[in-house]
Amino acid sequence: MITTISQNKCFGGTQGVYSHVSQETGCTMRFAVFMPPQAKDGPVPVLYWLSGLTCTEENFISKAGAQRMAAELGLAIVCPDTSARGLGLPGEADSYDFGVGAGFYVDATVAPWSRGYRMHSYITQELFSVIAASFPVDAARVGIFGHSMGGHGALTIALKHPSVYRSVSAFAPICAPARCPWGEKALTGYLGVDRTAWREYDATALIEDRGWQGPAILIDQGGSDQFLETQLHPELLTQACQRFGVPLNLRLQPGYDHSYYFIASFIEDHLRFHAANL
Amino acid sequence: MITTISQNKCFGGTQGVYSHVSQETGCTMRFAVFMPPQAKDGPVPVLYWLSGLTCTEENFISKAGAQRMAAELGLAIVCPDTSARGLGLPGEADSYDFGVGAGFYVDATVAPWSRGYRMHSYITQELFSVIAASFPVDAARVGIFGHSMGGHGALTIALKHPSVYRSVSAFAPICAPARCPWGEKALTGYLGVDRTAWREYDATALIEDRGWQGPAILIDQGGSDQFLETQLHPELLTQACQRFGVPLNLRLQPGYDHSYYFIASFIEDHLRFHAANL
Repeated sequence: MITTISQNKCFGGTQGVYSHVSQETGCTMRFAVFMPPQAKDGPVPVLYWLSGLTCTEENFISKAGAQRMAAELGLAIVCPDTSARGLGLPGEADSYDFGVGAGFYVDATVAPWSRGYRMHSYITQELFSVIAASFPVDAARVGIFGHSMGGHGALTIALKHPSVYRSVSAFAPICAPARCPWGEKALTGYLGVDRTAWREYDATALIEDRGWQGPAILIDQGGSDQFLETQLHPELLTQACQRFGVPLNLRLQPGYDHSYYFIASFIEDHLRFHAANL
Repeated sequence: MITTISQNKCFGGTQGVYSHVSQETGCTMRFAVFMPPQAKDGPVPVLYWLSGLTCTEENFISKAGAQRMAAELGLAIVCPDTSARGLGLPGEADSYDFGVGAGFYVDATVAPWSRGYRMHSYITQELFSVIAASFPVDAARVGIFGHSMGGHGALTIALKHPSVYRSVSAFAPICAPARCPWGEKALTGYLGVDRTAWREYDATALIEDRGWQGPAILIDQGGSDQFLETQLHPELLTQACQRFGVPLNLRLQPGYDHSYYFIASFIEDHLRFHAANL
C-alpha cells in the first residue's frame, strides 16, 4: 500500500512523490515516480534513477530536468531514497558518506547496519514489486541509471541482474568502490573487512567476474569533477571492460563538474539511450 | 565590484552565482547569471527572471530547466534575489509574504522599509548597471519575466520602463496586487494606505494608465493553481488589456499548479518568445 505525498502535473505527465512501509529497510520510505502522458494508453517502460550521497528522492526530480524528454519518449522514472532513515542506529547520521543518505545500494551484513541498510534488495525486489503493482509500467522493459554513489548502484545492480535491467548508464559513477576512500569506508562498515565480499558491490570487479551482454554501458564523466581523481576511477572500469570485452561508451565532458548542472546538460542523451534499448 | 560564489558549466555555458554590496538595499545581495556559450563571441541579449515569495536567486537556476534553451538561443538570464536580507528591521522575517523574501519589487516609502526595501530601483538601475558592466550582454536587448510575485514584478517593471524592456512574460503572476490579500498586505506595508500610490505597482492599473506598445504580453496560468482564485486575478488584467487595446496572450494550462513543475513545462515557450522579440 502506498501513500501519495504530492502530485504535480509536469510536461503533460505526473511527477508524484509517494511513501510506503518497507520490510527491507524497516521504516517508511519515500520514492518519486514520473509517469509520462503515454501511460494513459497502457504500460510504459520504466527507468530507475539512483541518487548520490546525501540525496533523497527529491534531488533528481527537481534539478535534472528529465521530465521533458521522459514525457516525449514515454518513459516512467522511479527515484528511490538513498538509505533507510530514522532507524536510530548509533552514529547513523554522523557522517555524510555513511549511514543515513549513504546506503551505497548494498545489503549490509555487519550489525547494526544489517538491520535496514538493505538498499540492494529494497530496490531490486521490494520497490520493484511495489512499482509493478501500483503503476502502469512494463516490468519487462526496465533500465537503470544514477549519479556518483547512485551510478555505482546502477552499475552494480544491472551487472548482478542482467535479465531484469536491459540498459544501464551513469553520471560520474564510483567505478571501483573497493579502491577509493568513499567505497572503502562504506564497504568496510556495511560488509566487514573481508574484501572478497566487496566484489559483489564493485562494478569493476563485477565486470571481471560476470561480464555484461547488454548494450554498451553509457557513462558521462565531467572533466573538472572535483572527485574524479580520488573517488571515481573510471580508468579502472575502462580497463576491466577492455580486458573482458564489455562495450563501454565513456564520454569525458571537459569543464563539467559533479553537480546537477552537469547531469541536466546530458540527461537527454541518457534518456534517449535507454529508450532505444528498452 | 562583484564576488563569485560559484560557477558551474551547464549546457556549454556557465551558471554563476555572484554577490555585491548594494547601495539600494544596504546589504550584500546575491544574484545568478547564466551565460550561454554564444557569449564567447560577443554580447548576447539578456533576460531578467524575477522569482516569487520565499525564493532566492537559487530556485530558478536549479529547478526551471531554462539553461538548455537559453544555451540554444544564446540568451543570458539574470536572477536577482527577492528582497534585502539581514537588515535587522523589526519583524522583517516574521511572515513569508512580507519583508525578507517578499520585496514585491517596489521602492518602499514607509519607514522602516524605505531603508533597503527598494527592489524596483535595485533591479532597474543598480543591478542593471552591474550586469552591463560585468558581463558581455547587450543592454539594448533586454526582456523580463517572472513567477507569481515575480510575474507581478516583471509586468510592472516592463510597463513602467517600456523603452528598456522590449518583451515581458509571466507565469501565474499576481495581476492586480491592489485587489488581492498578498498585494494589499505588501502595498500597505511598503507604500502606506493611500491606494493612489499603489497604481505604480499594479500591472492592471499600469495597463490602464500607460498601456503597452511592445509585443503581446505572454502569460501562462495553471488551471489547477491553488492561488488562482484568491490571489492572481488574470481576469482583471485581461479586462484592462481588452479595454485599452493591449495585446495579451494569456494561456490557461489545464491541470497545472503553481510549482516549478509548471514553470519547467512551459519555460521553452517563454524563452523562444523573448528570443524572437529581442
